[in-house]
Amino acid sequence: MTRQDAQGFDLADPLARFGDAFDLPKGVIYLDGNSLGPAPLKVHERLEKVSRHEWGEGLVRSWNSARWIEAPGRVGDKIAQLIGAKAGEVVVADSTSVNLFKLAAGALSLRPGRKTLLSETGSFPTNLYVLQGLTHLLGDRAQLKALAPAEVVAAIDEDTAVVVLTHVHFKSAQRWDMAAITAAAHAKGALVIWDLCHTAGAVAVDLNDIGADLAVGCGYKYLNGGPGAPAFLFVAERHQALIQSPLWGWMGHATPFAFEDNYRGASGIRGQITGTPPILGLAALEAGVDLQLEADPARVEAKGLALADLFIAEIESRGADPALKLASPREAGQRGLHVSFSHPEAYAVVQAMIARGIIGDFRAPDIARFGFSPLFLSYAAVWDAAHAMADILAARAWDRPEFHARAAVT
Amino acid sequence: MTRQDAQGFDLADPLARFGDAFDLPKGVIYLDGNSLGPAPLKVHERLEKVSRHEWGEGLVRSWNSARWIEAPGRVGDKIAQLIGAKAGEVVVADSTSVNLFKLAAGALSLRPGRKTLLSETGSFPTNLYVLQGLTHLLGDRAQLKALAPAEVVAAIDEDTAVVVLTHVHFKSAQRWDMAAITAAAHAKGALVIWDLCHTAGAVAVDLNDIGADLAVGCGYKYLNGGPGAPAFLFVAERHQALIQSPLWGWMGHATPFAFEDNYRGASGIRGQITGTPPILGLAALEAGVDLQLEADPARVEAKGLALADLFIAEIESRGADPALKLASPREAGQRGLHVSFSHPEAYAVVQAMIARGIIGDFRAPDIARFGFSPLFLSYAAVWDAAHAMADILAARAWDRPEFHARAAVT
Repeated sequence: MTRQDAQGFDLADPLARFGDAFDLPKGVIYLDGNSLGPAPLKVHERLEKVSRHEWGEGLVRSWNSARWIEAPGRVGDKIAQLIGAKAGEVVVADSTSVNLFKLAAGALSLRPGRKTLLSETGSFPTNLYVLQGLTHLLGDRAQLKALAPAEVVAAIDEDTAVVVLTHVHFKSAQRWDMAAITAAAHAKGALVIWDLCHTAGAVAVDLNDIGADLAVGCGYKYLNGGPGAPAFLFVAERHQALIQSPLWGWMGHATPFAFEDNYRGASGIRGQITGTPPILGLAALEAGVDLQLEADPARVEAKGLALADLFIAEIESRGADPALKLASPREAGQRGLHVSFSHPEAYAVVQAMIARGIIGDFRAPDIARFGFSPLFLSYAAVWDAAHAMADILAARAWDRPEFHARAAVT
Repeated sequence: MTRQDAQGFDLADPLARFGDAFDLPKGVIYLDGNSLGPAPLKVHERLEKVSRHEWGEGLVRSWNSARWIEAPGRVGDKIAQLIGAKAGEVVVADSTSVNLFKLAAGALSLRPGRKTLLSETGSFPTNLYVLQGLTHLLGDRAQLKALAPAEVVAAIDEDTAVVVLTHVHFKSAQRWDMAAITAAAHAKGALVIWDLCHTAGAVAVDLNDIGADLAVGCGYKYLNGGPGAPAFLFVAERHQALIQSPLWGWMGHATPFAFEDNYRGASGIRGQITGTPPILGLAALEAGVDLQLEADPARVEAKGLALADLFIAEIESRGADPALKLASPREAGQRGLHVSFSHPEAYAVVQAMIARGIIGDFRAPDIARFGFSPLFLSYAAVWDAAHAMADILAARAWDRPEFHARAAVT
């Protein structure tokens, strides 16, 4: 493919207009939106409005007048539209880790008599940490089985309360088949919690269509909600009457402002909230989600996969360094929207690209990871990034002694 | 006292200069900084810098270049200076409720063999909710005793793992004697968790001086950290090696970026962090804390108590409505920095004051609550507020039928 071909794709791209909606520095090709999404231009004015007008002028009155109190549910309802959930099934609260703790304990409450939490090794580790912490806390009332991904499905059994899986792997981008796994778990009476951190805003999913039970996800990747944005959680409507969060707090109470001494959880998704909602984070997240809602999720996914395919093809067409290996599924349908390569000098490769304004990610020990966020990346930019990386691989700066000498002092 | 006397106090007030450091609407007397502190003027530019420069231009690089990753500990160290803690004993994370869950479970881990969590009824209820949720989760491995405040101390016994008390009561402002309670608990081998929501930035405390074990507190009251600001928690250095948070997440791992499958908690206070830090909330909180650090805590407390005394005295000197009763301790040393009155028409009184630009708080069923944040309130403003309230009480608008007719339609 020539650069002109890539430009031709851009001219025909119905998502191209979103490129102007983000605040990205000139000269930067940002292939790390899967770690921290860039700032939507509108988020700056939104934050200024919250800070100066709602907080500064409105003061405490803004809990009602600026509808702060509704923000967790309102933004949750918007995220629901992106992942095939209904209004009232998603709420924004806490971090992904804390939300997983709530839902994993909640899943045990939905499956009394079952003790096993089943999950995968080698995925983004906070999920295993949360489950390890929960089982440590619960002692002999719960146990964690963490198996290699290939062994997970066969291990679902009559003692499995819940299977916890990350839909799109943080390094390889390998996707689980959500429908098939959910069906397999349900066949054994187990529930599934899907971690949608690399899914929401990227890969088109329809939680209700596949009969999903529970899900968590973060706000700061493809939802472009800002650094450490609050996270979301999903509880299918059919589970809401029975699930119990272990984190009982005043904002999850049926009548928070009655200041009763005894907890009575709110019905519906609000029962999953604990403390006072983080309004600044919610405001930024809402700006990111609002932008995402303007794009068709199927188109978003298709473009992201096409960008990734282009990147792989251009790198490989340049006669790749034999040490460079694709560490993601070659078939687009098996992937999320990022691509990883392994290379013994992956760290040096990523640093050299950053020096040229192309921001990707190094993941120890030898992975160079690149995310293809469809809203702000053009085909031409991805073409440029691929050829820059091919140039860097061809130049092999790391073979020259002065490279390591320089690296040692900087 | 005349208004001129009050103005004389302002002229002599070493904290008066802080009045210009806050963004408060003209004509408003804000007596609700104990619910949501107002915006420091500098917070607006700080948020704009984070949004446009650090997030917009710096993108993912700002985790290091803008020191985002250090923010929970850095802001924690600053809060430590306000509450008599050492660097490394305080961290900013999550909400007050979630932090209490972590420390209450952590206290059980520090006192194996003891099952009782002891707390008070009638205080801000999220604390009881959190403890109820934790004991519900742990089944017969823990129990909650929630007693009337007067019965708490006598109930500390050999089975008490931890006593959970709110230092300054959210309605009455009644203070616990932190030193005496802590000593009484230690005498029985129990720990104490202090809730400092209405204390930090208001009442001068010295956690290490009194041998405090554990504490939590919120960022959005007297620390002026913004709506839903992240909360803080304190773990005395001597407990840090053994305490275990039940919420294991990647940011509390000894080496988060090694992506190991097994949790190894970070040593020190960082082991109390769970998910990715909320950078926008932390930035706003840091601006509020930075301002607070410029004031001497003892002076802050003394002025707040003097303002409250002035308010009580002026209201009462006007020949108070006999239905108006002080619902806070009369003696300043027994109080935090807010004052509550009970009145059968408290709701109407608070609404009438708000209509005159004096923002206080109604707390069901019959409490009018007024906070006296020392950094931005002048003696003259408090004098004005007291006389406005006395006027409203004298006018007795609620005795006229048209008042209720109007209230019914608005």
